[in-house]
Amino acid sequence: MASPIYLGVVGVGGVGTAFLNQIARLPNAPQLVLLARSSQTLLAPTPAYSPAIPAGDWATASAGPSLTKKGALPAEEIATYLAGVPGRAILVDNTSDLNLARAYPLFLKKGISVVTPNKKGFSDDLSLWKDIFSSATQGNALVYHESTVGAGLPVLSTLKDLVATGDEVTRIEGVFSGTLSFLFNTFAPASSSSDAQWSAVVAQAKELGYTEPDPRDDLNGMDVARKLTILARLAGLEVSRPDSFPIESLIPTELASLPSSADGISEFMSRLPEFDGQMADVKATAEKQGKVVRYVGSIDIAAQSVKVGLQYFDKDSAIAGLKGSDNIISFYTKRYGANPLIVQGAGAGSDVTAMGVLGDLVKVIQRLQ
Amino acid sequence: MASPIYLGVVGVGGVGTAFLNQIARLPNAPQLVLLARSSQTLLAPTPAYSPAIPAGDWATASAGPSLTKKGALPAEEIATYLAGVPGRAILVDNTSDLNLARAYPLFLKKGISVVTPNKKGFSDDLSLWKDIFSSATQGNALVYHESTVGAGLPVLSTLKDLVATGDEVTRIEGVFSGTLSFLFNTFAPASSSSDAQWSAVVAQAKELGYTEPDPRDDLNGMDVARKLTILARLAGLEVSRPDSFPIESLIPTELASLPSSADGISEFMSRLPEFDGQMADVKATAEKQGKVVRYVGSIDIAAQSVKVGLQYFDKDSAIAGLKGSDNIISFYTKRYGANPLIVQGAGAGSDVTAMGVLGDLVKVIQRLQ
Repeated sequence: MASPIYLGVVGVGGVGTAFLNQIARLPNAPQLVLLARSSQTLLAPTPAYSPAIPAGDWATASAGPSLTKKGALPAEEIATYLAGVPGRAILVDNTSDLNLARAYPLFLKKGISVVTPNKKGFSDDLSLWKDIFSSATQGNALVYHESTVGAGLPVLSTLKDLVATGDEVTRIEGVFSGTLSFLFNTFAPASSSSDAQWSAVVAQAKELGYTEPDPRDDLNGMDVARKLTILARLAGLEVSRPDSFPIESLIPTELASLPSSADGISEFMSRLPEFDGQMADVKATAEKQGKVVRYVGSIDIAAQSVKVGLQYFDKDSAIAGLKGSDNIISFYTKRYGANPLIVQGAGAGSDVTAMGVLGDLVKVIQRLQ
Repeated sequence: MASPIYLGVVGVGGVGTAFLNQIARLPNAPQLVLLARSSQTLLAPTPAYSPAIPAGDWATASAGPSLTKKGALPAEEIATYLAGVPGRAILVDNTSDLNLARAYPLFLKKGISVVTPNKKGFSDDLSLWKDIFSSATQGNALVYHESTVGAGLPVLSTLKDLVATGDEVTRIEGVFSGTLSFLFNTFAPASSSSDAQWSAVVAQAKELGYTEPDPRDDLNGMDVARKLTILARLAGLEVSRPDSFPIESLIPTELASLPSSADGISEFMSRLPEFDGQMADVKATAEKQGKVVRYVGSIDIAAQSVKVGLQYFDKDSAIAGLKGSDNIISFYTKRYGANPLIVQGAGAGSDVTAMGVLGDLVKVIQRLQ
């Protein structure tokens, strides 16, 4: 007889809401007994951990009398609550909170499995990475985080399969940011010509909601660097920090120190055209070689090198031909030879990110049962 | 305490040998207690099921006195032997034998999980497909068959994840045969021109070992049709048989009835040039539209249609840009929108096929423990 499974979910932002809507339609979904957001925590009353929280309709249920309501709970209290369920517990962290990620070892040691799209914990200090996985072993719990790279695309599962079956991964290369993919596919398309200025393309992406509220959070390359850190570690490289390797920032030095306030962002956007000449030069240099420029991350396992920045690609290459805001990830391995194993598609967005989380959850449930 | 796991393997051909070499290097591999090939079956002696067979060195061990040796065993006897292990058992079928596949329900009902790259059982009568999966439920056993489509590429796992998380798959399209990929990438390359005759390209592929011994076994489209049958069924279509939908054969009608003997194959190859004009016409028609011709399989879920045959593609499309003998599989879904989720890479070859089998085996072990 399978042990019953109980679920605690933190975060009800874009991905969190999409996840709750998806799990509400999942047949035989585990009981949702905890739902935490910044202002409030909903709990199925102890000691029975019943009734459960309706995933698709938690807001209505939170107004009724049947659930326990508390304010924001520290991670320790969430862990204690979940450790008490009469079965196995899984924490789904749909936030991007480093502090919650730092508490994963605490959950895992108590036997609570973790499923999350939160990059922070897996791309911070190497010591946290090691602590997370040794705690999982210690607590006989599982950690799945497919959506930390490429959202719902099968990127980490593919890399893990390659490694687990003894293939030798030699190089990983790709476009890992939907935002930067859109910017360069629009600024320097491979199959047509464009005379759009760089700053205009950034402004367009911002208006379409493709960038972070402060576009510098995309242009600084740190999001890509965090994803590369995770991939490199899974491939066996001991990357100490996400800023311990070369990262080419696309923020002009002169604009880097503007504050991240609304005024600062506004000044950044209005002064960005001053630097259009620099990006136009980069594009022209690529053109002269019959190539296009793209913002990529690459990992060379043998050379133990990780880097993030601009590179030129042949116009008929898969990276140059990318459309919209798609990601592409190429795995070069001994068994696959000269032509890499490629995964491509939307690598951002609430629905596909939540799908990656739910896919992980299904696998964790299968393994715990 | 995890239940010990025991392994029976059938087949020591190209994929079987690659699999045995790979599992020999796998840490904590399960005990290999049965190894069957057409002429002989090696068994760990009962009742202890010990000593186990050394996966990487079974040939030497088979000459020694410690293992039980029998002739070819019927599937029933293999199932009875594996059902007796003091733990959980997994059958790995590395053959392409339909008769062994017909016995999967027997294994599964006895609680023996099945891992295989053998397409036959999953692409034959729909009744066998249903029998396999209902038997698995009945016996509380698992069935994994990633390598039946695209070898080690994450094709079936991706489709299963899309379906399990409630995405709506609308269309699946791709190049599913390494042989046909090579033939068309060489005959009608997208980024350069070629004046090679069709028959010469087929002869070249045969010489390189890229085709079956009788190239008509590739050109008749049945291998692609079987893969499409599996994908369509996983996507929810009840395909009755692999020949229950339109399959465009590339074998000229006049040569279809030549015997499959060495003489027949030789006559086929020598008469194929008579039909080069037909394929040249197809290529020219595509050229006139600025396109290239490719041999693809496609599934339209809403229209419940499956088809296999020649289609024209824009030269800058991912399918047209395929290299070597790579496969490409595009999943169009509601969540992914206009740009599909794409998986691409080598879809044939002993090493990558065996890797897909081993990857499945690792997942089955994780779930059984």
